Amino acid sequence: MADGAVAFGGQLRDGRHHLVLRVYYEDTDVGGVVYYANYLKFLERGRSDFLRALGIDQVALMRGEAGEPVTFVARRCEIDYLKPARFDDVIEVVTWVAEARGASAVMGQEVRRDGVVLATALVTIAATGADGRPRPLPRPLRHIFNTLVCR
Amino acid sequence: MADGAVAFGGQLRDGRHHLVLRVYYEDTDVGGVVYYANYLKFLERGRSDFLRALGIDQVALMRGEAGEPVTFVARRCEIDYLKPARFDDVIEVVTWVAEARGASAVMGQEVRRDGVVLATALVTIAATGADGRPRPLPRPLRHIFNTLVCR
Amino acid sequence: MADGAVAFGGQLRDGRHHLVLRVYYEDTDVGGVVYYANYLKFLERGRSDFLRALGIDQVALMRGEAGEPVTFVARRCEIDYLKPARFDDVIEVVTWVAEARGASAVMGQEVRRDGVVLATALVTIAATGADGRPRPLPRPLRHIFNTLVCR
Amino acid sequence: MADGAVAFGGQLRDGRHHLVLRVYYEDTDVGGVVYYANYLKFLERGRSDFLRALGIDQVALMRGEAGEPVTFVARRCEIDYLKPARFDDVIEVVTWVAEARGASAVMGQEVRRDGVVLATALVTIAATGADGRPRPLPRPLRHIFNTLVCR
Repeated sequence: MADGAVAFGGQLRDGRHHLVLRVYYEDTDVGGVVYYANYLKFLERGRSDFLRALGIDQVALMRGEAGEPVTFVARRCEIDYLKPARFDDVIEVVTWVAEARGASAVMGQEVRRDGVVLATALVTIAATGADGRPRPLPRPLRHIFNTLVCR
Repeated sequence: MADGAVAFGGQLRDGRHHLVLRVYYEDTDVGGVVYYANYLKFLERGRSDFLRALGIDQVALMRGEAGEPVTFVARRCEIDYLKPARFDDVIEVVTWVAEARGASAVMGQEVRRDGVVLATALVTIAATGADGRPRPLPRPLRHIFNTLVCR
Repeated sequence: MADGAVAFGGQLRDGRHHLVLRVYYEDTDVGGVVYYANYLKFLERGRSDFLRALGIDQVALMRGEAGEPVTFVARRCEIDYLKPARFDDVIEVVTWVAEARGASAVMGQEVRRDGVVLATALVTIAATGADGRPRPLPRPLRHIFNTLVCR
Repeated sequence: MADGAVAFGGQLRDGRHHLVLRVYYEDTDVGGVVYYANYLKFLERGRSDFLRALGIDQVALMRGEAGEPVTFVARRCEIDYLKPARFDDVIEVVTWVAEARGASAVMGQEVRRDGVVLATALVTIAATGADGRPRPLPRPLRHIFNTLVCR
């Protein structure tokens, strides 16, 4: 893929979101590879851009422009590190809905380089209100997630 | 516990390592709580200080001062976020050996505040050589881990 | 200095605050040294603990428990990187008031290892209200800063 | 500018490099704005992509494929924070050569949002060898930098 052809914010294809990223110095550690916690940053970028691509505006939700203010939080994350990403790599974060429930959803995610899977993850996200307590996922999101579940 | 009584680098008690940390601005996000990826930084600080407390010198291992150079890497991490940590909190990272194998070990970890568990995690660590391929864990480490397994 | 003797949150000596830190994996990059942006995290930890040692409660200020809510922000930072800090180093962040004004203050800071200066910085901090606009520094803070200016 | 029109890795225009970025959760702090140290990450992404756009391959330089291995390091950074960037903002990092010397160069940089300057910086970069000691900047880089100096 030519660099110029990479869509800012990624793109949806067959219900999965694809985000292309560069690995910079900030992502690496003294071991010469991407630091293990930083994959979770890549995954979150993927999920944020996935939501945006679905028409979900996280800032409007936080501000309560569509009802009570809600923020998304991660409830659980499991990640397998298969192969290391390195400085200067171009990688791809793929995100999809693995499971949709009323108060949470499980996102499936992969980090790939040249089609090779470097890491796989399942991240459970939920919504909280201003008091930090759980809220149902916003109805439009639940609807979209239900139609997008893939495995 | 008085602030002055907090041991730098944490301390071992009954085979578990306890590290006390402050939550700073860098750890938080716009949601007002600790960003989900940053818990993995706290966990890694706990594991590094646990190894040091056990007499394992990661720098010497990387440099190959005790045989072939090896670096520790995370193979898998599963973490449950139960309650949020917030700016300025004093938290405790507890680390223990949940399972010891020849080429890897599973570390059990918790993040606590005032005795309340905020997050629990299982992190599988392994060793790699200079070529990035798996190596057995250093023998002294395997021995120590075997004697320390607790559940 | 024995590890056990390192004060959590650092300590004031002659108007300067000294905070001892460990360099962890998260702080390093592929170059094998501490990533240049991460020194600003160390500096901010130093400033936060300096304020706490002076009796300034940033959380109470944010919540407006002592008048209008204010948050501290950095207006300017200049930092010279003299020698690299490395993985596993024990370093010290030294913080003092270099200049006190009504609406801002300049903090002098150094990062040292074994008494050798690794980096020097001047950081201008100011206060903002809930609207993001500048506010005078809280009066007790201004008073303390004025008495502590050193060069 | 349509999202799809944003060039991955940014683009050179009149000797200045323009990189468009999204602000994600990871970049923000409890104050609701981008954490001050994280601007330095944005700046470094800009400089790395600037070098790449100029045909400089940092990985090849590190590996010594074009002579002695060298790594770029920051020697000094001064940054003024004018207005805050916020979660979900689309920002632009602009990078140019402000001054070229034999052993170092000063990069001028700005972070902008919708044409408004949020932060300005001057970053002095230099090259170091495997021993961590200073080296002249690689000759092709010096040549390019000399032709690109703008103020």
